[in-house]
Amino acid sequence: MTAHAVEDAARRAKRAQPALALLHRDTKDAVLLAMADALVARAEDIVTANARDLEAADAAGIEPGLRDRLALDPQRVAAIAQQLRDAADLPDPIGEVMRGSVLRNGLELREVRVPLGVIGMVYEARPNVTVDAAGLALKSGNAVVLRGGSAALHSNTALIAVLRSVLAEHGLPEDLIVGIDAYGREGVDVLMRARGLIDVLIPRGGAGLIRRVVENSLVPVIETGTGTTHILVDASADLDQASEIVLNSKTQRVGVCNALETLLVHREVAEAALPRLATPLAAAGVRLHADEEAARILSAAGTAAEVVPATAEDWDIEYLALELAVKVVADLDEALEHIRAHSSGHTESILTRDLLSQQRFLAEVDSAVVMANASTRFSDGGEFGFGAEIGISTQKLHARGPMGLPEMTTGKWLVIGQGHVRP
Amino acid sequence: MTAHAVEDAARRAKRAQPALALLHRDTKDAVLLAMADALVARAEDIVTANARDLEAADAAGIEPGLRDRLALDPQRVAAIAQQLRDAADLPDPIGEVMRGSVLRNGLELREVRVPLGVIGMVYEARPNVTVDAAGLALKSGNAVVLRGGSAALHSNTALIAVLRSVLAEHGLPEDLIVGIDAYGREGVDVLMRARGLIDVLIPRGGAGLIRRVVENSLVPVIETGTGTTHILVDASADLDQASEIVLNSKTQRVGVCNALETLLVHREVAEAALPRLATPLAAAGVRLHADEEAARILSAAGTAAEVVPATAEDWDIEYLALELAVKVVADLDEALEHIRAHSSGHTESILTRDLLSQQRFLAEVDSAVVMANASTRFSDGGEFGFGAEIGISTQKLHARGPMGLPEMTTGKWLVIGQGHVRP
Repeated sequence: MTAHAVEDAARRAKRAQPALALLHRDTKDAVLLAMADALVARAEDIVTANARDLEAADAAGIEPGLRDRLALDPQRVAAIAQQLRDAADLPDPIGEVMRGSVLRNGLELREVRVPLGVIGMVYEARPNVTVDAAGLALKSGNAVVLRGGSAALHSNTALIAVLRSVLAEHGLPEDLIVGIDAYGREGVDVLMRARGLIDVLIPRGGAGLIRRVVENSLVPVIETGTGTTHILVDASADLDQASEIVLNSKTQRVGVCNALETLLVHREVAEAALPRLATPLAAAGVRLHADEEAARILSAAGTAAEVVPATAEDWDIEYLALELAVKVVADLDEALEHIRAHSSGHTESILTRDLLSQQRFLAEVDSAVVMANASTRFSDGGEFGFGAEIGISTQKLHARGPMGLPEMTTGKWLVIGQGHVRP
Repeated sequence: MTAHAVEDAARRAKRAQPALALLHRDTKDAVLLAMADALVARAEDIVTANARDLEAADAAGIEPGLRDRLALDPQRVAAIAQQLRDAADLPDPIGEVMRGSVLRNGLELREVRVPLGVIGMVYEARPNVTVDAAGLALKSGNAVVLRGGSAALHSNTALIAVLRSVLAEHGLPEDLIVGIDAYGREGVDVLMRARGLIDVLIPRGGAGLIRRVVENSLVPVIETGTGTTHILVDASADLDQASEIVLNSKTQRVGVCNALETLLVHREVAEAALPRLATPLAAAGVRLHADEEAARILSAAGTAAEVVPATAEDWDIEYLALELAVKVVADLDEALEHIRAHSSGHTESILTRDLLSQQRFLAEVDSAVVMANASTRFSDGGEFGFGAEIGISTQKLHARGPMGLPEMTTGKWLVIGQGHVRP
């Protein structure tokens, strides 16, 4: 019965989508602004629904971090509404002519940007993602099927009801935005098999969720998020700068995919660098998982940092916590080799004053975002100026790195002739 | 054992690929030209190997069309070598700056084109595809694992040996080009599970092969080729032009994915149009699978065409033969509805003199290539001026429509700072 209901939801979204594909920007923006107003006007209902989710979560003993992401109050509802206003401000990707020419034989050729169709979003119990994903999908001409985690069921149901009522008020099919939280985890299985109904599935959340979707989906997937992010402190690095950048990359925000997870330090500079890097990290409460050489240097220097021996697993972990793996490397080659073996392909940064090292690092590291002399925390759609971000792709097909509105579209070739036949 | 050998082949290709990613265009082109020369110089060996495949194929009673695709002679080897020279002439996609800016905070941002990595190609017994795929992969910086159909085993082995020897002569790893034909069908299963080793799998061939790969692969796939291509003859069509375009679309080359498979005719013009369209089709030997109304009109007009009643299956078949499904539609809406229900999303064309009909058709048909007043046979990378084509994608992610060299690449973001940390 779940299978039938979820498939039916996807089918309704697919039937609704063409109405949206042809809407002009003015109309889409008007709908987004009306949705924002409606969310603010009905904030009380939304907070009440959220309270039911929080009650259940508290009874189940939810972690404080997850509870904070789930909780809504009128200020947070206003912030969520603001996301929709921001989406209205963004340029409309649909209709952009990406390439075009007139062929030798006079055929006119244009590649134009069109919506993907129906996007399936699978994410965790974060009600703000529900509205953000729905708004960005609407702006990019896509219908969405939303599966946002059972813990947020009542919040998401209330939010989606508001969004759908605004669609109806504007004469648009409500099924452009469909929630399937009521069908539990099984709903995700159905989405993964819904070839021909769901055009792309975007999982956003923990590594387990993403792996499950990538390995089981028959529908094309965009893999997002996991970041085993590296910084290499090169032999020539400015150590004051390096100390600031490493601290910022690790601690400016801890539970996010662009936070630093492994620090590599060039042997030539390790004795000078490690104690200077460790002191502010220690002050921020970061525990270091150090390889033998790093541990020895740190211990000899008598830093305040808590140091534990690194195990083999430490090189592949995304801690998302005040933990940092630290390793001394013989040279740039060993650093590149380590990154090749252990990176999830999200973001890596080199700190150096040497031009050749920077060139090699930028050219040879095969990750979505490769940096020099900057904090890994800049690997973000907002920081890149995209105005919105639906996730950060760590795969190579379709989209790589931060995904904004253009990444939620595809192309279509238009060919206009005047009776052309092929000789 | 096969599993181990194929996985090992993929692993060797992956290890070899970084050497290619950083090669300059000059070197890549020199290798391609040397490969072309080597193929011509060793044409005799290649033709001898091919004779073994043909002998086995004849003993197994191969179809004449398939035999023709498999057969090589010195002229064909020269034509295959020419494909490599053509690839050398194409611009190098690698290194292209796709987007770039300096952010408000001074961070320099560039999105550059880089190779996908290792491409797995699964195709039919066509030795020319072996060389073409290897050449285009090399030019775009990718290693390839080639699985070309057991019937071409000896031909492919000989061709790949020549290509690999040229790689070695240029000091490049031979494993940039790896063949796995020796491992049979099972090799494809292994490729499909080789996540982390194969970056993308491109199946090229019959619908059965493509469905098998799409449904079973854990590796990202680009779906190519199946074309249930439609033409709509609109009420306002120029019937002389329509007759030429329909004939060209159906018969200029029959066994290809951009050949016409279903003809829709607007009711207002059906009585005048159908006999005129049918006469040249009949002369070309095309059999019509007509719906009731079309059959009645054709029978009343007494055309020479062979007409059989269309069954429900006819609307979804890719005949790849001198067969054509024909249906009368009440209006543009019914045509759009029919295409939505039955198209494989490859190519559709409207023949019309009405601006609004053209606009609606181009906007509302959701296929990779949508045409007006032109033969569907123009839906082709060569015709589009790409200079090369690795296949025609009918999916929406990553690449849609004819795929040239840029579609064999991905992006990478380079971010250069001067000590930037995030506030």
